[in-house]
Amino acid sequence: SFRKKYLSLHSFEQAQVMEQLDDEERLVLYSFLSPEEMAMVFENIDEDRQQTYLAEMHPVYASTMLGDMYVDDAVDVLSELEPAEVAGYLNLMPEKASEDIKELLHYEEKTAGSLMTTEYVAVRVGQTVLEAMAVLKQKAPDAETIYYVYVLNDMQKLLGVLSLRSLIVSADDTLVDDILNARVLSVGVGDDQEDVAKRFKDYDLLAVPVVDVQHRLLGIITVDDIVDVIEEEASDDYAKLAAAGDARTAERSSWESAKKRLPWLVILLFLGMLTATLIGQFETTLDKVAVLAIFIPMIAGMAGNTGTQALAVAVRKLATGEAGEESTGKLIVREAGTGIITGSVCGVLIFAIVSIWQGNMALGLLVGSSIFITLIAATLAGALVPLLMHRLKIDPAVASGPFITTINDLLSILIYFGAAQLFLSYLLK
Amino acid sequence: SFRKKYLSLHSFEQAQVMEQLDDEERLVLYSFLSPEEMAMVFENIDEDRQQTYLAEMHPVYASTMLGDMYVDDAVDVLSELEPAEVAGYLNLMPEKASEDIKELLHYEEKTAGSLMTTEYVAVRVGQTVLEAMAVLKQKAPDAETIYYVYVLNDMQKLLGVLSLRSLIVSADDTLVDDILNARVLSVGVGDDQEDVAKRFKDYDLLAVPVVDVQHRLLGIITVDDIVDVIEEEASDDYAKLAAAGDARTAERSSWESAKKRLPWLVILLFLGMLTATLIGQFETTLDKVAVLAIFIPMIAGMAGNTGTQALAVAVRKLATGEAGEESTGKLIVREAGTGIITGSVCGVLIFAIVSIWQGNMALGLLVGSSIFITLIAATLAGALVPLLMHRLKIDPAVASGPFITTINDLLSILIYFGAAQLFLSYLLK
Ligand SMILES: [Mg+2]
Ligand SMILES: [Mg+2]
Ligand SMILES: [Mg+2]
Ligand SMILES: [Mg+2]
Ligand SMILES: [Mg+2]
Ligand SMILES: [Mg+2]
Ligand SMILES: [Mg+2]
Ligand SMILES: [Mg+2]
Ligand SMILES: [Mg+2]
Ligand SMILES: [Mg+2]
Ligand SMILES: [Mg+2]
Ligand SMILES: [Mg+2]
Ligand SMILES: [Mg+2]
Repeated sequence: SFRKKYLSLHSFEQAQVMEQLDDEERLVLYSFLSPEEMAMVFENIDEDRQQTYLAEMHPVYASTMLGDMYVDDAVDVLSELEPAEVAGYLNLMPEKASEDIKELLHYEEKTAGSLMTTEYVAVRVGQTVLEAMAVLKQKAPDAETIYYVYVLNDMQKLLGVLSLRSLIVSADDTLVDDILNARVLSVGVGDDQEDVAKRFKDYDLLAVPVVDVQHRLLGIITVDDIVDVIEEEASDDYAKLAAAGDARTAERSSWESAKKRLPWLVILLFLGMLTATLIGQFETTLDKVAVLAIFIPMIAGMAGNTGTQALAVAVRKLATGEAGEESTGKLIVREAGTGIITGSVCGVLIFAIVSIWQGNMALGLLVGSSIFITLIAATLAGALVPLLMHRLKIDPAVASGPFITTINDLLSILIYFGAAQLFLSYLLK
Repeated sequence: SFRKKYLSLHSFEQAQVMEQLDDEERLVLYSFLSPEEMAMVFENIDEDRQQTYLAEMHPVYASTMLGDMYVDDAVDVLSELEPAEVAGYLNLMPEKASEDIKELLHYEEKTAGSLMTTEYVAVRVGQTVLEAMAVLKQKAPDAETIYYVYVLNDMQKLLGVLSLRSLIVSADDTLVDDILNARVLSVGVGDDQEDVAKRFKDYDLLAVPVVDVQHRLLGIITVDDIVDVIEEEASDDYAKLAAAGDARTAERSSWESAKKRLPWLVILLFLGMLTATLIGQFETTLDKVAVLAIFIPMIAGMAGNTGTQALAVAVRKLATGEAGEESTGKLIVREAGTGIITGSVCGVLIFAIVSIWQGNMALGLLVGSSIFITLIAATLAGALVPLLMHRLKIDPAVASGPFITTINDLLSILIYFGAAQLFLSYLLK
C-alpha cells in the first residue's frame, strides 16, 4: 500500500515526496498519516513551505503534530507565526507539550537558546551507573540524544557529563560521581550561534549543554542543528559579499529577486554618482587629454578586484577568530606590503603595455604609477573597512564586495586624475 | 606540576598552548609527554604547523605518535609528506598501525575515502545483543564512534546498522538480525566530499558507512570531520567569489598574500586592457562629447554589482542542488525579469538625476537607457556563466566576482558607447 511504502522511507525522503504533492494530494496525505507520523516528516519540510502546510491542516491535527515534534523543531515552526495563532495551537495541545514549547519560545533568534531543546537525559549526583542506565532506557524514545547524560545537583546545577561510552564500560554499582567528567564544556543561553558552532568545531562535540548564569542546565544543542547553523552562516556571508541580500530562502520569482537586490543597487547607484561627480571635477583635464578616459574602467576595476580580495581575507579571518592573534599595526603593515608587491608587478606590466601600445611613455608612466598607488590604497581599504566595523561591533560580513568596489572606484579615480594633473605638461608634450 | 596541569586540559586547548610555545619549549614538551599523549594533542594542531613539529621530533617518537593517532588523522598528516618520508615513519611503526594507515593512504583528496577511518565497530549476522555489546565494550577505547554498530555478512558486505540506542533498549538474547536497520544509508568510497556532507545535513547523521561497489564496508566517516568539510567548502567558495585564492590557510606574510592574489590580478589586468581597447574604438565619439567619460565608472560599476549578485545566487543554488529543480529556460526568464525590474528602477532614477544635474535630457536618456539595458545583460551574464560552467562539469564556484565584474565592464561599455553613437546627433544638439 502507499501508506506502508511511504512510511518505509526515511523522514527526509518522506518530506521530499510531500513537497512534490499538490494541494489536494497533501490533504489525502494528512488523512493517511497520524499526527505522530506527520511530525517526523514535518521537521524536514522546507521552512518556507511549513507555514503553508500548517495552515492547510485541521487545527487539532496540526497542534497534535506540533506537540509530537522535537520541541526545538516545533518552536522553530511556531516562532514564525503571529502570537494569536501560536496561542491557538498551544491551547489545543497537551499541557506538558505546550509548557515545553512555551519555555523555549522566547529566546532570541541566533542565540544558543534558540537552538536548544529540553529533551535531554539527566541524572542526580549519588546515583549509580545501573540507575543512570535505567533513566536512559526510559528516556531513550523521546530524547534528542542519549549519548550524553548530564549530572545535576538538587538545584539543577550542571556538575558534569557522562558519555554513554563511559556508562557502558563501567560496572553497574559505580557511582556516577566517580566517572563523571566535571570539566564539562557548556555554552551560555545568550551566546551567539556562531560562537556555539565554533565550540563544536574545535572540540568535536556531538552535543553541548546550555546553562544560565547560575550554571543551571536549561537545555542541550545537538550537532545536526549546528551543521545547519554553519551552512546558514556561510550562505549569509557569501550573499553579503555579493550584496545579494539573504541567500538562504530560495528566490522563486523575478519580483522576489528584485526586491532583495534593489536596495543594494540603489545605494550603489548613488555612490556611483559620486564617481561621476568626481570625474566631473576633472573635466578640463579630460578635455585636454581625451585618451585618459580609456583607462578609467581598467584602473577602477583593478582597485575593485584587489579591494575585494583583501576584504574577503579580512572577513574570513575575523569570522574564524584568527584576526585576534594579530595586532592592527601588523595587519596594516602586512596588507600594505601585499599592496606594494601586487602594485609593483601590475604597475610595471601596465607601464610597458601602455607605453608600447600608445607609443607614449608619459602616459604609460601615468597609468602604471596610478595602478601602483591604487593597488596599495585599495588593498588597505579592503582590509581596514571590515576591521573598523569589527571594532565598532558591526558584523564585518556586511561590508560587501560591491560596496568596497565602489569606494575603491572613488579612490582610484582620485589617484588617477590627481596624478594626471601633476603630469599634465608631459602628457600634452 | 606543569605536566599534570597541561594534561588536565582538553586536547584542543593543549594544542592551542603548544602553538604558543617556541622551538625550545616544544622540545621540552616532547620530553614531557608520551607519544600517546602527544597523539591527542597533535590532531588538533593547525595543518600548516604539523609538518614543522613532526620534523622536530625524534623519528621513533614521531612514528609511535602517528601510530597512536586516529588512523584518519594520521593519514591526513602523512599524505602531506614525500613518499620516502612516509615510508620512513611507517617502517618504525607497529605493523598493525602501519597497515591500517597504508590502507587509507591512497584515496583521492576530497573523496569519501579520504575522510573515512577504519576504526568502527562491526558484528556478524547471527550474533546476539549481548555479544554485540561485548564487542562494543572491547572496541570502545579505540573506535571513533561506538554509537553505531555495523552488521556484516561473511563477505564483509554491509547488511545493516544498529544504533547503540536500539542495543541498550533490547533484550540481551535478541538477535541483531531482528533489530538491525537494513535500510542503512551509505556512501561510495569515491563520492565527492560535498555530496557526503549533503547526506549528513539532510539525514542528520552522526556517522555514515563507506562502501565499495560490492557494498563491502571499507570504513566510516564521522560528523566532526564533516563539520570541517562544510567549513572548508564554504571558505573555498567564499574565497573564489572574491578571487582571493585559497582562503583556508592563514596568510602570514605579505609575500604569501601577494603570491595568492597576483595570478588573478594579472589575468584581470589583461581583461581590463580589453576595456581600454574597447573604449579606444570610441575615441572620436568621446572627443566630441567629453562629458560621456564621467559616467563610465558608474555604469561599469552597476554592471559589476548586479552581475555579482546574480552570480552569487546562481552559485549557491547550484551548490545546494536546488538549481536541478528548475529548467534553464525558467532560470533565464526569471533572471531576465529581475534584470528588467532592477534596470527600470535604476534607469528611471538615473535618467531623472542626470537630466536635472547636467540640464541635458538627451544625456539623461542615454545614461538611463544604458543602465536599463546593462542591468538586464549583466544579470543574465552573472546567472548564465556559472550555469554554463556547471553544464561543462566545471565547479561554478570558480566563476569569481571580479571575473564576472570585468566581463560586465566590457558589456556595459559596449552598450553605453553603442547607445551614445546612436544618440550622437541629439547629444551634440
Ligand atoms: Mg530554534
Ligand atoms: Mg552572528
Ligand atoms: Mg573539529
Ligand atoms: Mg534539533
Ligand atoms: Mg533536526
Ligand atoms: Mg556571520
Ligand atoms: Mg583524510
Ligand atoms: Mg567538490
Ligand atoms: Mg539536518
Ligand atoms: Mg576523524
Ligand atoms: Mg578529528
Ligand atoms: Mg565546492
Ligand atoms: Mg568595477
